[in-house]
Amino acid sequence: MIETIQWTGEGVVMIDQTLLPNQQEFFTCRDYKDVAHAIRTMVIRGAPAIGVAAAMGVAIGIAQADPEDLDAQLAVISAELAATRPTAVNLFWAIDRMNRVYRDRLIAEAQLVRVEDIAINTAIGHHGAPLVPDHKTVLTHCNAGALATAGYGTALGVIRAAVESGKTIDVFADETRPFLQGARLTVWELQQDGIDVKLITDNMAGHFLHSGQIGCVLVGADRIAANGDVANKIGTYSVAVLAKENNVPFYVAAPISTLDLTLSTGDRIPIEERAAREVTHVFGVSVAPHDTEVRNPAFDVTPNRYVTAIITERGVARAPYTESLRALMESK
Amino acid sequence: MIETIQWTGEGVVMIDQTLLPNQQEFFTCRDYKDVAHAIRTMVIRGAPAIGVAAAMGVAIGIAQADPEDLDAQLAVISAELAATRPTAVNLFWAIDRMNRVYRDRLIAEAQLVRVEDIAINTAIGHHGAPLVPDHKTVLTHCNAGALATAGYGTALGVIRAAVESGKTIDVFADETRPFLQGARLTVWELQQDGIDVKLITDNMAGHFLHSGQIGCVLVGADRIAANGDVANKIGTYSVAVLAKENNVPFYVAAPISTLDLTLSTGDRIPIEERAAREVTHVFGVSVAPHDTEVRNPAFDVTPNRYVTAIITERGVARAPYTESLRALMESK
Repeated sequence: MIETIQWTGEGVVMIDQTLLPNQQEFFTCRDYKDVAHAIRTMVIRGAPAIGVAAAMGVAIGIAQADPEDLDAQLAVISAELAATRPTAVNLFWAIDRMNRVYRDRLIAEAQLVRVEDIAINTAIGHHGAPLVPDHKTVLTHCNAGALATAGYGTALGVIRAAVESGKTIDVFADETRPFLQGARLTVWELQQDGIDVKLITDNMAGHFLHSGQIGCVLVGADRIAANGDVANKIGTYSVAVLAKENNVPFYVAAPISTLDLTLSTGDRIPIEERAAREVTHVFGVSVAPHDTEVRNPAFDVTPNRYVTAIITERGVARAPYTESLRALMESK
Repeated sequence: MIETIQWTGEGVVMIDQTLLPNQQEFFTCRDYKDVAHAIRTMVIRGAPAIGVAAAMGVAIGIAQADPEDLDAQLAVISAELAATRPTAVNLFWAIDRMNRVYRDRLIAEAQLVRVEDIAINTAIGHHGAPLVPDHKTVLTHCNAGALATAGYGTALGVIRAAVESGKTIDVFADETRPFLQGARLTVWELQQDGIDVKLITDNMAGHFLHSGQIGCVLVGADRIAANGDVANKIGTYSVAVLAKENNVPFYVAAPISTLDLTLSTGDRIPIEERAAREVTHVFGVSVAPHDTEVRNPAFDVTPNRYVTAIITERGVARAPYTESLRALMESK
């Protein structure tokens, strides 16, 4: 299992995802500012993983805080961690959860978040595996894998569970420009498990969806509105439209903590716009003229009509999502 | 009149002066090597006659040469003929004259191709400009610009013509992985003309088409079937589907020479699959794990139902394309 993030005596240790796959190095956060930095610079990414990191960030921040002034410092720490990335609601969910527990329990709670996250992903895989068509290719976008979670993965967890259940599938991974999570992380992660994976550029997805070889699309999510609109990595919307146009099922795999039922639709999900350099440079090499102007939204919103089903640890939701998601949220 | 040398269907025929006056026999040179041999062995002699023989030697040599390699063979033929006799300057004068004519004719023809191509692109721009919505963004994919033509461009020619006609537009350029023609070429080319251009990654196109800011899509074509199916750079199909889904017009700009009416549909257009390294490396830098498997189709086929119109130098074709394209082909 890939150790995406762990609590150690040294601090919070993360595999540095900006260096994958060329280098497997670990980044040690010795204080909460290191954790905030790691989230902001995408040393760790993926909505569930960010939630775990934020939880551990609160824990280490409070563990090191002046005991005389815990309340004020918890607020400062929470605010700094909450300001790192705007889209993934898991971040706020985790910070809120950490705020609700006592200092003594923070570390244990953070550990529990991690263990629960792995259990959640295993359950997502269990619910999702039957949906994956046998003897076909699964198309995935970005990295909704072990590296995006505490382990096993959401979308890639479903793929793992499908393979474990005996299905013969292979995977096409969109490279996922500009940050190349698909090329760098998904390919690497599936190679570790011996799952047959081929890399394509994002603009090839439509061609292969049209070709008939793709059995389903599986992606993760950064935030899901009450009506089932899904915010996820930029390019997800395009893949969803192309899947529907070619009658290929489009599945979203995500934990219940990704649901934000306070938002009636996805239109109100804020979309982070990131630095131009991510687009103009690849691993430090310029791919465009000097002074090129850029747009760089990190996420897009896929309207619910393109989503065949949402796979959670509590079961599979289908349209109409306003009812099915609320039912899942209230179950258990 | 003595027939010293003549151009005939058999070859270059000379009276064999080595046999005169005893025999009046004719020597037939069936290739330029025979002509060189005739000059060298004095079958023909006398400075002006050698000049004529050398000129005909060049002519027969080029007539029989590999059309792929005319320049190199002209040099070989000229060198061999020039080496036959050292003294008579007519020999060199004639060879030079033939070289000049050859070059001038080729240059003239090449210039004509170039001038015609620019005129064609200007006409495409003229027909296309009225279709471009004012005060909106044009989305383009790959580079169908001056750099892809002799000048002005097809899709970018329409953009140039729209700007020249006074419209206020800007351009979003898909970077166009894996070869990055959009990032490297389209951005640069439009910057040279002072046209407002922003670079996006391919997977952002859907997001912006959904946002309402894109007035139309303009792309080029590599081959267009009789029914209007369009083969173009990989990713074009995806953009076309996303445009239609969001009611954004999708225009293809191409010269009549791009039409292949021998193909009834685009299914029969061969799709080139290129080297894996184009996907796994960007400017020599690896973006994926070692030994990553890849798919790399260089083109895709956009079915005619996604194509709002095809803009040619002879006018604009709309569905049903089988009729409209044939009418354009037969016009003029």
